[in-house]
Amino acid sequence: VKPLRESIIAIVGLGQIGASIGRVLVARRACRRVIGVSRKASTLRDALQLRAAHEATRDLARACARADVVILATPVRTILRQIPSVSGFMKPGSLLMDVGSTKGEILRCADEHCGWRRIRFVGGHPMSGHSGSGPSSSDPALFDGHPFVLIPAPRAGSRTIRIAAELVHVLGARIVRMDADVHDGTVALISHLPHVIAIGLMLEAAAERPGSSFRLAAGSFRDATRVAASDTDMLLDIFLTNRRAIGKSILSFGKRLLKTGLDILTGDEKELRRTLALAGRLRRELSTSSR
Amino acid sequence: VKPLRESIIAIVGLGQIGASIGRVLVARRACRRVIGVSRKASTLRDALQLRAAHEATRDLARACARADVVILATPVRTILRQIPSVSGFMKPGSLLMDVGSTKGEILRCADEHCGWRRIRFVGGHPMSGHSGSGPSSSDPALFDGHPFVLIPAPRAGSRTIRIAAELVHVLGARIVRMDADVHDGTVALISHLPHVIAIGLMLEAAAERPGSSFRLAAGSFRDATRVAASDTDMLLDIFLTNRRAIGKSILSFGKRLLKTGLDILTGDEKELRRTLALAGRLRRELSTSSR
Repeated sequence: VKPLRESIIAIVGLGQIGASIGRVLVARRACRRVIGVSRKASTLRDALQLRAAHEATRDLARACARADVVILATPVRTILRQIPSVSGFMKPGSLLMDVGSTKGEILRCADEHCGWRRIRFVGGHPMSGHSGSGPSSSDPALFDGHPFVLIPAPRAGSRTIRIAAELVHVLGARIVRMDADVHDGTVALISHLPHVIAIGLMLEAAAERPGSSFRLAAGSFRDATRVAASDTDMLLDIFLTNRRAIGKSILSFGKRLLKTGLDILTGDEKELRRTLALAGRLRRELSTSSR
Repeated sequence: VKPLRESIIAIVGLGQIGASIGRVLVARRACRRVIGVSRKASTLRDALQLRAAHEATRDLARACARADVVILATPVRTILRQIPSVSGFMKPGSLLMDVGSTKGEILRCADEHCGWRRIRFVGGHPMSGHSGSGPSSSDPALFDGHPFVLIPAPRAGSRTIRIAAELVHVLGARIVRMDADVHDGTVALISHLPHVIAIGLMLEAAAERPGSSFRLAAGSFRDATRVAASDTDMLLDIFLTNRRAIGKSILSFGKRLLKTGLDILTGDEKELRRTLALAGRLRRELSTSSR
């Protein structure tokens, strides 16, 4: 495995995450060369203008064949389609990474296609993201201080893992190691469930109080529904590749919600006070904890 | 009814809302005199220092007897306790307002105690608020451009309603007229339900994934749980005075959540795409609409 500084890195998919990674790598001269790959000519043009890559191409096969590190930064189900072909284009011994939002299916797919080709696979998930999409929404500070989950495939090898870790370090993110199941269960709860909730709240307000709810919508509603405006295709890929964990989270949360509803309907002041005080204490702890 | 400029206004309760109102009235010389009322000496001191009142007192009865307008800015259940006594202290023909977050019980209470004493009652609810509490969290820009619901009691009279409207106008808020039931049903959905959800999410994360969820908590979880840190007593008063509407909202929302959970578990891509696209469109409309 080559050191990062001497590596050619191909970034496949130049949306917010892919273009942000490219901009950091180019600006910090962290590697020898960054090749941006996208199917859309306008995306390639925008990425070059933003210095998210040294060169830009639609030729996935050639870019992967030249690269020492390939980073898949496409939506999750596209990643699942690309792993079989991309791992075939790459040089044996090189590193394949992804930055998809769910990890179980991706790690299983990589296990099937990468090992016997001697492609080292390390799954990644940067826990950052703004609203917006495409290279124009990229931001070199996107990863600063945020968690970046790394999940190496069983046969990735410690030297390869060090390269992946160095890359995350260059991005300014904080490495978190966990296994794919714990990752998927956790993000189902802290990210996918909040998205499902935001979507449900938005539709509920439109269905039940179409006139008055939009007129009164204040801070709490705007905060609670903000992520409902996320990209449909991206969310759909996340939901459909983490079905079991999200389903479980929804059922468990729904039960808790109904319990609180019952406490409110029956006016159980003692129980409500306990619930509110505990949630308030936990949320204040989260505010003061480092991100 | 005296014009606002010649009125003595007593503000009972100098928390974030009460002190913010006082600061605007004093700064804009909108009335003859502002009397701040609180039980706590430290609150009175802070309010005077912030110029949230011209004078400050613990003597509720005397302040109300002198005032042409009394604004109750205490938690909802305190307002319910104060209406019977305060309406007894006030001069016949003067205006009593409140700024509590639920309106049905308050309007019913006012109906019982104010009319026969010739106290004109106008219920209010400013749809604004930051985190924090007490006079130190007040902000003269708190109401700028935000909705401020006004619900006059049946016998308030048009001249009195005009005074209340002028006061809201001075605060920089946007008057929204609706009846108490529509108000309580709407805020149950767009404010109280999001609070119940934020509390539930916080407790769910702590119960199900105590280690990993806090380590990965990113934007969507922080946004979705922000209001869980709200003041326990204030929330408790809101929940317990709007029980039926909140209960209904929780049940209706819970049903929607479970339906989406089923779509995810069964991988119903077509239905999910429809749901996500519609919610996304509605949320983007909300973002572009004026507040």
